[in-house]
Amino acid sequence: MYDSFAVERLIDLWLLEDIGYCDLTAQTMIEPEEVGAFAMNARQPMTIAGIEIAAAVFRRYEPRLAVDVKVKDGDVVEKGAILLTVTGPARGILTGERTALNIVQHMSAIATETARYVAMISHTKARLIDTRKTTPGLRMIEKHAVTCGGGLNHRLGLDNGVMIKDNHIAVCGGIAPAVGRAKTKLPTLTKIEVECDRLEQVSEALAAGADVIMLDNMSCEDMTRAVAMVAGRVPLEASGGIRLDTIKAIAETGVDYISTSKITQAAPAVDIGLDEA
Amino acid sequence: MYDSFAVERLIDLWLLEDIGYCDLTAQTMIEPEEVGAFAMNARQPMTIAGIEIAAAVFRRYEPRLAVDVKVKDGDVVEKGAILLTVTGPARGILTGERTALNIVQHMSAIATETARYVAMISHTKARLIDTRKTTPGLRMIEKHAVTCGGGLNHRLGLDNGVMIKDNHIAVCGGIAPAVGRAKTKLPTLTKIEVECDRLEQVSEALAAGADVIMLDNMSCEDMTRAVAMVAGRVPLEASGGIRLDTIKAIAETGVDYISTSKITQAAPAVDIGLDEA
Amino acid sequence: MYDSFAVERLIDLWLLEDIGYCDLTAQTMIEPEEVGAFAMNARQPMTIAGIEIAAAVFRRYEPRLAVDVKVKDGDVVEKGAILLTVTGPARGILTGERTALNIVQHMSAIATETARYVAMISHTKARLIDTRKTTPGLRMIEKHAVTCGGGLNHRLGLDNGVMIKDNHIAVCGGIAPAVGRAKTKLPTLTKIEVECDRLEQVSEALAAGADVIMLDNMSCEDMTRAVAMVAGRVPLEASGGIRLDTIKAIAETGVDYISTSKITQAAPAVDIGLDEA
Amino acid sequence: MYDSFAVERLIDLWLLEDIGYCDLTAQTMIEPEEVGAFAMNARQPMTIAGIEIAAAVFRRYEPRLAVDVKVKDGDVVEKGAILLTVTGPARGILTGERTALNIVQHMSAIATETARYVAMISHTKARLIDTRKTTPGLRMIEKHAVTCGGGLNHRLGLDNGVMIKDNHIAVCGGIAPAVGRAKTKLPTLTKIEVECDRLEQVSEALAAGADVIMLDNMSCEDMTRAVAMVAGRVPLEASGGIRLDTIKAIAETGVDYISTSKITQAAPAVDIGLDEA
Amino acid sequence: MYDSFAVERLIDLWLLEDIGYCDLTAQTMIEPEEVGAFAMNARQPMTIAGIEIAAAVFRRYEPRLAVDVKVKDGDVVEKGAILLTVTGPARGILTGERTALNIVQHMSAIATETARYVAMISHTKARLIDTRKTTPGLRMIEKHAVTCGGGLNHRLGLDNGVMIKDNHIAVCGGIAPAVGRAKTKLPTLTKIEVECDRLEQVSEALAAGADVIMLDNMSCEDMTRAVAMVAGRVPLEASGGIRLDTIKAIAETGVDYISTSKITQAAPAVDIGLDEA
Amino acid sequence: MYDSFAVERLIDLWLLEDIGYCDLTAQTMIEPEEVGAFAMNARQPMTIAGIEIAAAVFRRYEPRLAVDVKVKDGDVVEKGAILLTVTGPARGILTGERTALNIVQHMSAIATETARYVAMISHTKARLIDTRKTTPGLRMIEKHAVTCGGGLNHRLGLDNGVMIKDNHIAVCGGIAPAVGRAKTKLPTLTKIEVECDRLEQVSEALAAGADVIMLDNMSCEDMTRAVAMVAGRVPLEASGGIRLDTIKAIAETGVDYISTSKITQAAPAVDIGLDEA
Repeated sequence: MYDSFAVERLIDLWLLEDIGYCDLTAQTMIEPEEVGAFAMNARQPMTIAGIEIAAAVFRRYEPRLAVDVKVKDGDVVEKGAILLTVTGPARGILTGERTALNIVQHMSAIATETARYVAMISHTKARLIDTRKTTPGLRMIEKHAVTCGGGLNHRLGLDNGVMIKDNHIAVCGGIAPAVGRAKTKLPTLTKIEVECDRLEQVSEALAAGADVIMLDNMSCEDMTRAVAMVAGRVPLEASGGIRLDTIKAIAETGVDYISTSKITQAAPAVDIGLDEA
Repeated sequence: MYDSFAVERLIDLWLLEDIGYCDLTAQTMIEPEEVGAFAMNARQPMTIAGIEIAAAVFRRYEPRLAVDVKVKDGDVVEKGAILLTVTGPARGILTGERTALNIVQHMSAIATETARYVAMISHTKARLIDTRKTTPGLRMIEKHAVTCGGGLNHRLGLDNGVMIKDNHIAVCGGIAPAVGRAKTKLPTLTKIEVECDRLEQVSEALAAGADVIMLDNMSCEDMTRAVAMVAGRVPLEASGGIRLDTIKAIAETGVDYISTSKITQAAPAVDIGLDEA
Repeated sequence: MYDSFAVERLIDLWLLEDIGYCDLTAQTMIEPEEVGAFAMNARQPMTIAGIEIAAAVFRRYEPRLAVDVKVKDGDVVEKGAILLTVTGPARGILTGERTALNIVQHMSAIATETARYVAMISHTKARLIDTRKTTPGLRMIEKHAVTCGGGLNHRLGLDNGVMIKDNHIAVCGGIAPAVGRAKTKLPTLTKIEVECDRLEQVSEALAAGADVIMLDNMSCEDMTRAVAMVAGRVPLEASGGIRLDTIKAIAETGVDYISTSKITQAAPAVDIGLDEA
Repeated sequence: MYDSFAVERLIDLWLLEDIGYCDLTAQTMIEPEEVGAFAMNARQPMTIAGIEIAAAVFRRYEPRLAVDVKVKDGDVVEKGAILLTVTGPARGILTGERTALNIVQHMSAIATETARYVAMISHTKARLIDTRKTTPGLRMIEKHAVTCGGGLNHRLGLDNGVMIKDNHIAVCGGIAPAVGRAKTKLPTLTKIEVECDRLEQVSEALAAGADVIMLDNMSCEDMTRAVAMVAGRVPLEASGGIRLDTIKAIAETGVDYISTSKITQAAPAVDIGLDEA
Repeated sequence: MYDSFAVERLIDLWLLEDIGYCDLTAQTMIEPEEVGAFAMNARQPMTIAGIEIAAAVFRRYEPRLAVDVKVKDGDVVEKGAILLTVTGPARGILTGERTALNIVQHMSAIATETARYVAMISHTKARLIDTRKTTPGLRMIEKHAVTCGGGLNHRLGLDNGVMIKDNHIAVCGGIAPAVGRAKTKLPTLTKIEVECDRLEQVSEALAAGADVIMLDNMSCEDMTRAVAMVAGRVPLEASGGIRLDTIKAIAETGVDYISTSKITQAAPAVDIGLDEA
Repeated sequence: MYDSFAVERLIDLWLLEDIGYCDLTAQTMIEPEEVGAFAMNARQPMTIAGIEIAAAVFRRYEPRLAVDVKVKDGDVVEKGAILLTVTGPARGILTGERTALNIVQHMSAIATETARYVAMISHTKARLIDTRKTTPGLRMIEKHAVTCGGGLNHRLGLDNGVMIKDNHIAVCGGIAPAVGRAKTKLPTLTKIEVECDRLEQVSEALAAGADVIMLDNMSCEDMTRAVAMVAGRVPLEASGGIRLDTIKAIAETGVDYISTSKITQAAPAVDIGLDEA
């Protein structure tokens, strides 16, 4: 989920960043009246994210371009799949090309990596979720890419829920007063999550009325115990040490959410190209 | 190289992206007068990039914070190294924390990955260079991170040199007319690079007065021949298929530059944390 | 709650709106070196909101001004109370005056009106909450003003919780599928509220797992029944027809929240002036 | 009077303020291809202001929406009147709804309140005028709303005329030197108004060449004398203590303008809704 | 007259325009710790305008620079005069240099040219005034430069007075209805100017209540007649064909204002340099 | 060369600068439904620059205007030539008129002046080039205007090449170390220019590998010697003391580029008007 109107403001910044004064190559090599037809294609298997944003880059830079989008966000495609075609003034296509490719490659890398983690836990009820460890300036669209890969979003930003951690608990004199303090002040549609390192904290958080409880770097045994203790009253989030080789066992403890920054901060690039059609 | 004044405008966007309405947690859990002292530390070995930008995030959000930077961009540090300390209003530290960490982690990941490639070719005269395959919105600082890892920058944007490719050559009727056309129009301090797939094109480009010649996906044998043919008259850039296991042989052909998008598009995240001091 | 850093960007827009080219009066009538000392004072009893923002207007326009804030947001003051004093370059004070007064008058009007409603229900557990019916451009600070008057905030914006209404229920084929659909997609720290016109819908919403239930334009009798039915499992919000003469009875039904747009859309202005000290 | 091009920049800010990351409800509850047809209607009698701006909110957010405006600014409508209809993608209508309603309700409230004051003085030649006591960020459109209600605008901002007050007169050593100083420096198409508390000042201001004279908090007797004294040579503005129950007598003194902040700062909200058509 | 706070927003745009990614020369040639001391000096006689803006360019780009301004706007200086000195980080001085010089050269050129025209008419009561023929983006500061050279400003922008021309008169059916129409709608502190080609129009405009009358391309004889006819009741502006060799005779006709675009559109550059001190 | 998408952002700033609150004249004098047809014409012979930008001003302000552009940038036109016609809503034409004219007059003045200099040297191989002495905010379009007049652009901004001057040479200990330092750090497609006052420096710069050599304020004799010495290995730029009466002799020395700020800083205005068609 993202807002197209808001994304258009980002597209403007991205285009101007690459163009600067002007595209010296397109303007010296290509006549204004020259037209072209290009196809954007996947050079490896991938889960698509951001294809409409790539299309919007072309349309915004040069409204006379006709862009035909062939896939949709969340689609899993094979190597060689055509993602979109763009036809019209050649200068517009070539000047917008790099920005369009950079964003769809970045987003699809995140979706593809997310899908790899999601596949490991799809036999459980656990949902993979993201974090606020995103690239500055791209929070909205990276979170969208996570959902394209089958993940769910943790809070969108600092105004989108409360996370109570160790030092808040210390300052407030315990979990109960900390949660109480938040409840008196929070907007009515935001939730409170409490970060717990130990099982005792889990019961305290539950009793205090936390909406979500994070199990921070707990062993699978402890997480299993936490799941039993909470018995579905609030969702539990496993956090810390999530890797492709550990996530299955963690999901099988019965937790509701598993969060990792790997999907936004360490997704290996996917290869997408634009070739003359 | 980056301009601090220009980066401050980006910092504003990043902070507002994370904060939105306000930091619900900091504002409900922490009293305005509470102060804190935190240290940012490396949780793994890495090459540092962006440490002054991370410091600027804190200072810009809350001018009353005292930030003491302990390392400098380009430094190679061990696990456990303290990168900076920040003391002052606790709300300011906690609200700025994620943005500061996200940027220095992202930039240091690029610098660290760059340094791995650079280490493979440091016995040759070849320099590792980047591409325009950067994250939209972060061109300037990702290119800076590349230099922190020992790399050099290819053109900064579309107004920073001309790249003549296949379809330009086709349109202009050959390499010589294409280069000639660019020379008549280009700003006097920008260069022209010609992308060549075959050795014959290398001689044509040289004769036409190209300033830099790209050897695109050539075999090491052909690159060795190109080096001999050009004999130092213009720099040669090797491009395509650059990996950690191929770069050494490529560098030993005698090329001047080796370009890869891997360092900006596929750098595995480095781990940096902020802990109470 | 609001973020000072974000508010500074608004202050810039407000100042430039009033100033335009320049303050023709200050620049023709007052010498640059002239200094002044002024006090901002309450010309009627009121609940204060936005006093630090008024101070920030002066400081941002003319950093050489010394502003001494005498009250804090949420304070109830009598007619004649001094809210802040400002001393320094007279041009800076006079050019900033109107913007500073306009914002603190507007915010304190909201806080004062909110406090009138809150006073009617303070013997109950019901909390007064606001809506998204705010002045375009001032959402953040109007919501803050509501909290200064003792109210609580409903969602901050469209990304801050889900409101399921009649037509959503119709489209999804019932309350249960609508809530289910939201639950599969929502960020983990946001809540779902369901708008109910009839008591049967309240049980459906409860069963479907709504986080908050809105009782829309129900009679006090029905609201009392809803309170009994829900028995504290989720908060209930009374909405519609809230007036100073109806709110007490509504609060006494046992609902948790009472929402009204009156406090943001129809707060009679409070009178604050700036006089030479 | 307002400039549509300039207002579009404000609309962007308003929409982004409400939307943030995205409209979680519209995006989870409504399929992108769903279409809707809605009508905006007056739920009470009112004078319309801002209807084209409300239409522009919809069109700007979702250019595929067809908006049919049924009334025009300045129209007086009855309860139940349809103001506009909007048809097209349902998501676009629902996401834009609140912003469109908020602005037209705010502006129409001002127009309606203005019209109440204007009605009291329409048998005289006095014109009701506004002040710079407007909501920060909305100066332009609030002043437009005043004209929709039959009022006239005082200066638009600080660069739109000079107001000479007590302390300017003190600093310059009298009204004559103050006016003289302004005349030497002012842009040729801006006027000078002098604020007078006493009748003697009125004659001084007249002699000094003031373009407009403000009678500040004078009794009706003094205002009548001032009118006689000035005999139409410059317009006179009555200011201070203007209320619905005092304005008629003030207008009948023969003054040209009567200014009040009540119409922009204390207009009770009008009720406008958007219902499925 | 200009507003320093508003000008700072322009300075940001100017600096970023010149810097782009970064100052490649300063960053490769100069160590960050290097300091410098430079003086800005007049390389020809001139009237100064914009010296505080030039100083603000340096201070805004690099707050650690100490800038000592030696002259003030409006001063007439000889060749060799030192206008300001700047000391501190050398990179900051060299990166800001060109922007600072470009703006003070541009503004001082306008002031100097204005002063040449003003000198020709200083024996009369006529004041030289500017037009809206200014460089896009620099209206505010070019109008300020005109005042530094002894000129006065015509309207600042389209919201700063009304100019009634031929086609308006045609549309409205004469000068009287046109002026009348404006009077009913205009903000109370703005004036109406009527453009007249013939003497008959001057009497009509006077009768209609115009605040200022423009004599457009009239002969000196006609202007003399117009002056006699109007007899000081409203100011008269001579416009059209103003040159250094015609302005004296025009001023001697007794008109109040003489307007020309020459001072903003055709001022020959003045030479100002920055040298190591 | 300029980027139309980037220029649209400038156009917005220019329009808002002139309009402010609104065009008081157009809105009071002209009915919204009135249409007009106007032609923009050259009132003197000139070289055109910026005609598409003038057209874009009208289209952007009022998308319903039909603008028909009759000439193209670089065209040399006679007095009386029609440059474009614009038809549609009269308010839109009149409000946009001044901004459209101001920009095309400014740009065409630069193109026309450039063409005068270019004509003096067209019998030689020397190309006229510009400098960074441009009007703040208009770098991009002034450099474009220079190319319309037959000139070439020197570097576009500080990130577009390196200029090594006296004090850099001093700091680095000679030309060779200075150039070497730049070469190690520069983006691969940017050039290094060395400013030389004396012939010895020219050989040093050549030996050091400078890409371009500036001959700063040298006599024609020395320039002739420099040309012989360099023998075409790198381009030579003559700078300093360039005037219409000196440029021919300078060009005949055999230099490649001649740079002057005269074309951007001292171009006498060209006269273009908009008349009813």
